[in-house]
Amino acid sequence: MYVCVDFNAVREFHNGEYSKQTFLNYPRVMLFEFQLSAPRADFYNITSKVREAIAKSGVAAGIAVVYCPHTTAGITINENADPDVVHDLLIGLDKAFPDRAEFRHAEGNSAAHLKASAVGSSATIIVNNGKLVLGTWQSIYFCEFDPPRERTFFVKVVNCL
Amino acid sequence: MYVCVDFNAVREFHNGEYSKQTFLNYPRVMLFEFQLSAPRADFYNITSKVREAIAKSGVAAGIAVVYCPHTTAGITINENADPDVVHDLLIGLDKAFPDRAEFRHAEGNSAAHLKASAVGSSATIIVNNGKLVLGTWQSIYFCEFDPPRERTFFVKVVNCL
Amino acid sequence: MYVCVDFNAVREFHNGEYSKQTFLNYPRVMLFEFQLSAPRADFYNITSKVREAIAKSGVAAGIAVVYCPHTTAGITINENADPDVVHDLLIGLDKAFPDRAEFRHAEGNSAAHLKASAVGSSATIIVNNGKLVLGTWQSIYFCEFDPPRERTFFVKVVNCL
Repeated sequence: MYVCVDFNAVREFHNGEYSKQTFLNYPRVMLFEFQLSAPRADFYNITSKVREAIAKSGVAAGIAVVYCPHTTAGITINENADPDVVHDLLIGLDKAFPDRAEFRHAEGNSAAHLKASAVGSSATIIVNNGKLVLGTWQSIYFCEFDPPRERTFFVKVVNCL
Repeated sequence: MYVCVDFNAVREFHNGEYSKQTFLNYPRVMLFEFQLSAPRADFYNITSKVREAIAKSGVAAGIAVVYCPHTTAGITINENADPDVVHDLLIGLDKAFPDRAEFRHAEGNSAAHLKASAVGSSATIIVNNGKLVLGTWQSIYFCEFDPPRERTFFVKVVNCL
Repeated sequence: MYVCVDFNAVREFHNGEYSKQTFLNYPRVMLFEFQLSAPRADFYNITSKVREAIAKSGVAAGIAVVYCPHTTAGITINENADPDVVHDLLIGLDKAFPDRAEFRHAEGNSAAHLKASAVGSSATIIVNNGKLVLGTWQSIYFCEFDPPRERTFFVKVVNCL
């Protein structure tokens, strides 16, 4: 007995026999790793990379989890139109989470660790019709708080009808 | 050969033949869009809307992603019992992320963008037995930081046994 | 007709007939509840508990959602190597979100509610090859902001090829 849980196959089934082709395409790649050079404290727009992962996954409907495996960087979603917004976000986070005399961590980057926990290590975005469901002004950012660094981030695409 | 990946069908199968009905119900609606009027800076309790989406999806076990497509608003989970908590949260965020002379963004709402990244653009909640797994005092809030606005939010229900 | 959407079964199928065994293991347990004693304001490392949940679920590829059902505690991912980082994170959050004269909430723990919304009520981590995809220095923390408390947290494992 042959079972295929590829959801595209199931959709095709509704029109008759599903093709043997779907087996050859299975399993799909659903986890993507990207490299990023982060020479300065900044929010790096990675939306196009997340779109690339979704396109390669072939997923039509589901969610995408963008994950930062570092402890002095994070992922956030914010405005993409006026670059002054990112400028102001960096200042606002510096003011809310400054370096402090009471800090003990010898590496001296506790403020960057604080910002990482404040913005968070991941963002979850909805995927529909093969596209990210983002607002008009939204982009996905890799937030570098402890530069310069060579960084990695992951995109996991979850297929769900 | 007939294949159905509807998980309810699979559960029914364990009790014998699954019914042809399950095919007719497939595919389910899993993505829901809601409108919200936000006349003032406030946390708007949207828990009942998220529950409505889960009920309509028919999903018994999985997760729900509540997503805000705006850059001066966010989603958070916090106390629903004493309205003074939301009052204090608004003040505490205002104090941590005030408007600043150094800000450049001409629209003048950089503090709202900061609060959006601090609380985050989404919340992920577990679904079990067709219900949200929330703590006794938890509700899901749409956080408006740049009023007045007409807003949208999405609920994506992910079915997973 | 027999249908099994267990993804391991599907993988086994590629090597020939899948075994009847997979039916007996189905459905898998995918939602786990843990108890935690939190005698003081601290970040409690719960990474080993999340790993335990993933191992018990048998899931090879997917995501794990770690969820805090309390409103004066949260979940974050941060450094596990130098305990001074957590020391500094607690101080930095205290300074950014102090108790304030304007607060009205009679319980007097509004600062803890603020920290809960700042770090967030959940973390989503990618699972690959049956393991958490964490960075070298990352651990998952339950953040207690209103001690002493007896706490609960959930781990939902989502299976997705």
